[in-house]
Amino acid sequence: MSSQGQNTGRRPELRHDPVANRWVIFSPARAKRPTDFKSKSPQNSNPGDNSSCPFCIGNEHECAPEIFRVPSDPNWKLRVIENLYPALSRNIEGPCEEKEDMGVPARAIGGFGFHDVVIENPVHSVHLCDMEARDIGQVLLAYKKRIQQIASVESIKYVQVFKNHGASAGASMSHSHSQLLALPIIPSAVSARFEGMNEYFKKTGKCSLWAHSSHFHEFDCDKMVELGGLLKLMLRKMSLQLNNPPFNFMIQTSPLQVKESELSYAHWFLQIVPQLSGAGGFEMGSGCYINPVFPEDAAKVLREVNLPVAG
Amino acid sequence: MSSQGQNTGRRPELRHDPVANRWVIFSPARAKRPTDFKSKSPQNSNPGDNSSCPFCIGNEHECAPEIFRVPSDPNWKLRVIENLYPALSRNIEGPCEEKEDMGVPARAIGGFGFHDVVIENPVHSVHLCDMEARDIGQVLLAYKKRIQQIASVESIKYVQVFKNHGASAGASMSHSHSQLLALPIIPSAVSARFEGMNEYFKKTGKCSLWAHSSHFHEFDCDKMVELGGLLKLMLRKMSLQLNNPPFNFMIQTSPLQVKESELSYAHWFLQIVPQLSGAGGFEMGSGCYINPVFPEDAAKVLREVNLPVAG
Repeated sequence: MSSQGQNTGRRPELRHDPVANRWVIFSPARAKRPTDFKSKSPQNSNPGDNSSCPFCIGNEHECAPEIFRVPSDPNWKLRVIENLYPALSRNIEGPCEEKEDMGVPARAIGGFGFHDVVIENPVHSVHLCDMEARDIGQVLLAYKKRIQQIASVESIKYVQVFKNHGASAGASMSHSHSQLLALPIIPSAVSARFEGMNEYFKKTGKCSLWAHSSHFHEFDCDKMVELGGLLKLMLRKMSLQLNNPPFNFMIQTSPLQVKESELSYAHWFLQIVPQLSGAGGFEMGSGCYINPVFPEDAAKVLREVNLPVAG
Repeated sequence: MSSQGQNTGRRPELRHDPVANRWVIFSPARAKRPTDFKSKSPQNSNPGDNSSCPFCIGNEHECAPEIFRVPSDPNWKLRVIENLYPALSRNIEGPCEEKEDMGVPARAIGGFGFHDVVIENPVHSVHLCDMEARDIGQVLLAYKKRIQQIASVESIKYVQVFKNHGASAGASMSHSHSQLLALPIIPSAVSARFEGMNEYFKKTGKCSLWAHSSHFHEFDCDKMVELGGLLKLMLRKMSLQLNNPPFNFMIQTSPLQVKESELSYAHWFLQIVPQLSGAGGFEMGSGCYINPVFPEDAAKVLREVNLPVAG
């Protein structure tokens, strides 16, 4: 892995698909990222061992530049770094330009944005759910701090925090990590969610979720350790019940710039999705998911999982 | 595989997620469907051989009931059958009921609908792109005929036609087949597409796609063979260029009941998506896709693929 990964000729671009009514990120750099998973790339020379994992402690020089680390000394517990194969570029000036293509309005803007990686711990074999609740709390606090830094950039509209665990959940590196992608647009699922929460509020006068908090990065620091413990509990229960499945989690927060009137219904949450059956043409075509398990049944099963006391 | 697959106790249900602002199908029956792919289920006793494939000619008795076959004699070239593990049930009376859950409006309706399978040819090893253009045209005509039959059922709002090729594209059976899922709701991606096409039409006065045709099932019969040839060409080029990738295709058509005024911008199309890199937490959370290849580059590559003359 060399730092040339960032210089891939053509710059990323966001284009609005007027038919699907959503933005797509075109990013040539993403094609070049490596993987250390055996299952995806059997001929890979780096088959899951940690001697050459750039995320391991001691290999910091193999990574893209660091943004911050906790604590700030050589024995770090977590690091936030730039993604070496970013979907969006922090080096593009003037993020916004409208194009005219064959007489019809085509919406395309330069692929300006931030794509960062949170290395959740220094040890290759330790997964997020193996960590102490307070250390998971530190990971959540790192998301918060990084979003707060990015929020000062006016052209950034939304920050998606996400974790891919396992190759079939989209991870290309097995060392435990998560990512932030800061976007110059509000993506379609966020708009739809915002609209849904607004509808619910108009009908009921209540927030669609719970006691009110619109943005993850404004959540109390002292509650983050508690949230870390809850996340650990849920991940361990899921892992035990479903035999350590690949999974994703996403922090679903609100657009950075919201109006005062929108704060009454905008609410952040953390969504965990185990990857048990792949989506197919139906889901892709319709945007509608088929779930073989009713949510009340899944909740019941998870409530009843007995965790071993240690761990 | 037995016909008991259809009797799985709890009935399917559609529930509207007010936060994600979309419908989800809860379908206990889907969990029980078998697979004949080695890669998904190494311990499976039916590893990709055709001796016990229910879709092969001669094994018709192992399938759910037939809807029609072409031609209508024992030497059929294609069959349309009920899905033995349907996501929605054709046996539920009274499709629509609103529920009230803890004082807040919860939208849920019984899982009424049709879930059918098109067995595209009688031979286990023949894939769609290996077939003659006129036979692919017959498959497209079978979609058309089946949608026309379903369109007479008033509570059906949308029919999604789709094909999953390869286990990682969501297929559970390797014998070449496609599916129709007829829904009592208009799914979110269809609404978003409709809205996008409308926006484009309002801005430009033009259809966002081409010479105008709103519904796939109203497309001319004599053009279906031509479309079959085009589909064959595209599938063969994609297969050659990308080394026979898993793929999906979807017929993206309009809701069954549209207003006269909506016909001016509603347009059907066939979308083909090779599965080269799985979606992860970013795509799931944001609804925004990252594509390493610009569309104009992909189009250029496909134009330049030289196919062998035979085949």
